[in-house]
Amino acid sequence: MSGHGQAAWELLLPAAGAPARRRGRALQEALREAVRSGRLTAGTRLPSTRALAADLGVSRGLVTEAYEQLTAEGYLRSDRGAGTWVGDAARATHARGDGRGPVHGARARGDGRGPAAGARAPGDGHGPVAGVRARDGSGPGGGARARGGAGPDAGRAEIRVDFHPGTPDLSLFPRAAWSTAQRAVLARLTHPALGYPDPRGLPELREALAGMLTRRRGVVADPERLVVCSGVAQASTLLGFVLRARGLDAVGIEDPGSPEHGRLFASTGLGTVWLPLDEEGLLPEPLAASGVRAAVVTPSHQFPSGISWSAERRAALLDWARAVDGYVLEDDYDGDFRYDRAPVGALQGLDPERVVYAGSVSKSLAPGLRLGWMLVPGDLLGEVVERKRTMDLGNPVLDQAVLAEFVTRGGYDRQLRRCQRAYRERRDVLLAALAEHLPGTRVSGIAAGLHVIARVPGRYGPPERFLARAAEAGVALRPLEEYGTARPGDGDVRLVIGYAHLSPSAVTAGIRLVAEAVGRD
Amino acid sequence: MSGHGQAAWELLLPAAGAPARRRGRALQEALREAVRSGRLTAGTRLPSTRALAADLGVSRGLVTEAYEQLTAEGYLRSDRGAGTWVGDAARATHARGDGRGPVHGARARGDGRGPAAGARAPGDGHGPVAGVRARDGSGPGGGARARGGAGPDAGRAEIRVDFHPGTPDLSLFPRAAWSTAQRAVLARLTHPALGYPDPRGLPELREALAGMLTRRRGVVADPERLVVCSGVAQASTLLGFVLRARGLDAVGIEDPGSPEHGRLFASTGLGTVWLPLDEEGLLPEPLAASGVRAAVVTPSHQFPSGISWSAERRAALLDWARAVDGYVLEDDYDGDFRYDRAPVGALQGLDPERVVYAGSVSKSLAPGLRLGWMLVPGDLLGEVVERKRTMDLGNPVLDQAVLAEFVTRGGYDRQLRRCQRAYRERRDVLLAALAEHLPGTRVSGIAAGLHVIARVPGRYGPPERFLARAAEAGVALRPLEEYGTARPGDGDVRLVIGYAHLSPSAVTAGIRLVAEAVGRD
Repeated sequence: MSGHGQAAWELLLPAAGAPARRRGRALQEALREAVRSGRLTAGTRLPSTRALAADLGVSRGLVTEAYEQLTAEGYLRSDRGAGTWVGDAARATHARGDGRGPVHGARARGDGRGPAAGARAPGDGHGPVAGVRARDGSGPGGGARARGGAGPDAGRAEIRVDFHPGTPDLSLFPRAAWSTAQRAVLARLTHPALGYPDPRGLPELREALAGMLTRRRGVVADPERLVVCSGVAQASTLLGFVLRARGLDAVGIEDPGSPEHGRLFASTGLGTVWLPLDEEGLLPEPLAASGVRAAVVTPSHQFPSGISWSAERRAALLDWARAVDGYVLEDDYDGDFRYDRAPVGALQGLDPERVVYAGSVSKSLAPGLRLGWMLVPGDLLGEVVERKRTMDLGNPVLDQAVLAEFVTRGGYDRQLRRCQRAYRERRDVLLAALAEHLPGTRVSGIAAGLHVIARVPGRYGPPERFLARAAEAGVALRPLEEYGTARPGDGDVRLVIGYAHLSPSAVTAGIRLVAEAVGRD
Repeated sequence: MSGHGQAAWELLLPAAGAPARRRGRALQEALREAVRSGRLTAGTRLPSTRALAADLGVSRGLVTEAYEQLTAEGYLRSDRGAGTWVGDAARATHARGDGRGPVHGARARGDGRGPAAGARAPGDGHGPVAGVRARDGSGPGGGARARGGAGPDAGRAEIRVDFHPGTPDLSLFPRAAWSTAQRAVLARLTHPALGYPDPRGLPELREALAGMLTRRRGVVADPERLVVCSGVAQASTLLGFVLRARGLDAVGIEDPGSPEHGRLFASTGLGTVWLPLDEEGLLPEPLAASGVRAAVVTPSHQFPSGISWSAERRAALLDWARAVDGYVLEDDYDGDFRYDRAPVGALQGLDPERVVYAGSVSKSLAPGLRLGWMLVPGDLLGEVVERKRTMDLGNPVLDQAVLAEFVTRGGYDRQLRRCQRAYRERRDVLLAALAEHLPGTRVSGIAAGLHVIARVPGRYGPPERFLARAAEAGVALRPLEEYGTARPGDGDVRLVIGYAHLSPSAVTAGIRLVAEAVGRD
């Protein structure tokens, strides 16, 4: 035993007997839980990786990986070489199953301190964040490979390849397995389960999702706090109505971010305020100066920039939320897809009383299922559930039961692995195509998700001409400027390129078409 | 040809070559359409039944039935023995497929002329109208036969028989046929159909429902005006938000009626005003004096009284709506179940530009499917669809495709016939049990739906004692007073008795238990 602090380090690895491949995850979960529960208090210095590895009888690499992962998530902090300490971002979690969080003191409601609603109208971008895509109301269009009508230049030419972000490859939907699960569900569901649903969702699904999210996303997921909803869009609307009823006027959104969030919140009477972002996350000072008391963020894989928020910015955001007695909506729209390392744990795990966590199956299975989930702070739970009830009485039960079956029996994990392999391959194909056909293009945000940011050098032409030429060639591309207030300044073309829904050959063909089009004169 | 007016009567039966059993329906549909289109103008005298039957080569009974049906629905009016004329309730319908109605002149919006919101708070009844049932948030409770927790006296004794209205027999859900349709759907749906849905609903379902509703309910159902939603509760919330955004403050609801409507509209910022009802429908003068510009009604089978609105009151309601430039929400919650004659056609057919028609599969299949529909006036359509989009982006696609398959291939009609037979039998069992065990009880509202109104004579004890004794015996009964502002005056016990979800033996046992309990002293 290394003797750092009073922590019983050997308690950190209850699953010491577990298979080797599970030990790393077990250590990470145990460390997170120890920080959350207060057993490891802020400022406690952790043993060196060498010492802890020896104490626990595991490899040093496994401990190093755990420290790095939890540092990235904000549970720990480290000074290069000087050591690792317990951070102060995490807050004690509520007891599972009681449905109430710790008392937060008197909560001011309805004081309307936010900035004027709608003070800054979001742009009319087409960015699908959180499974939200602006539609023209004309029904599902086009094929899986080439979709038309959504791009800024749609109509100029037949769209042959559409690099819009946010749609998964719908041909990966596991039809046979889903069909089998449907049959099993209809054979076993009781008659009363077909009646008016629990507005919070089917109990068996809430149990299954809570387990899956705890395991995969590092959240604090009490089934009593989990509300099944129709996706992140509905989660935004539900929360918007609740916050509006409490007197808030506006919600902050990331800049760059998703203008669609603005439309969703506007439908609840809330304005939106763009909050500037740098390569680490939201800038703390503009956030504090904005006057808002709620913000929507995508810290695991920021949309559209692709960054993962730094641990410091995660902690700063939570400090802000506590200081203004506010809330954070964590839109974990594609948190499951991470290619070069383990997914970064969700922000919600650090403070489940301040963070509303929302996710869905829109990227992993199909947007058409309209099935998602929220983890709701105890203080907001009753209001969110009542909103869900008056909005639709609860989600349809059959798909809920099928998803529960799918999660419980491992089908969901298999599906995620399958998508992950496919999307990683397409990302690699995209990078290769850009390198070959548009050399000099710099790509970022490539470690996760279903899209990248590409910065094409100015020598391929000014942005307007570049996009027009691509559209003429039948390739729909979206400039980063559609997703926020920034305007191009250096002549480079900055693009948000979604690749997940395209076959590898379509990805290559699309980039080649662009290169040929912009090369002409 | 009889020579009454200029109408080409022979055109009224385009399906003259149809099988005999379809001719009556074809005649009714042709007559409705002729009135709506203006080909038969108000005041036109119709031929005698004998003359028209001879002209068309059909039986006189078939013509008499058609005249009676359309008179009940408000398309025709008749003076006992003196003749039958075209009424003036119906308004010309819009051209199918253009998505816009005739111009109604300048429409004042947002003037906020309604009465103060929430001026009369609805009671806290448990009435399930339109598939809405207040829940305690504790998940699906009880078995199909006996459900607990909803009655006013729940908790006094274990509930053995719960006569709550509004839930169908969930054991009648066609699991095998639904499962077959699910498999077929997953085999044939295109990949893009699994993507983000059209917020208005799957085109194939909107086509199928429009055809089914035109045929079964006499509505004007253009697929372009049909919005798939999660049920009548969501239809109410969607319309509530749209009307609130237009400046309305309150909506009128029938008294007696469903207090749940009050809760749904309250969630959209609208108050509700009770509007008194007699045995023919809403009283015109209090309606005019109320100041509201929108009302929710159940004219086909009023909830809970069970009456069918008279043709005069249907016409008066539409006159009112036109005069105040307002809208009517027709909650057709159980319009398909009618036992002693054909269902009365929906009000919407008389004026599709003033009536929002809403229905669902909650009574015919299962509430857990959360699947319903709205027919929306052209003037409101865009706003309703945008609300639907921000609320949930549209209904889940798989269940929509399955229902389309079900409707198109005749499974839905078969299911309705099956339910109709079962519920009619249970109604008859209930009437027999009341006659045997509580003689003197008068029953009304028995020609339709899933519940009756029973008036138990005062000799069985004062209402409070009666209900308490029943609850002690494990039988949950709901007094009519839960559904409006009326208070008992004559000592009789007035009950809303739902029977559809109970087996015939449970119905008999429940009434016997009540009789035994109230007979003790």
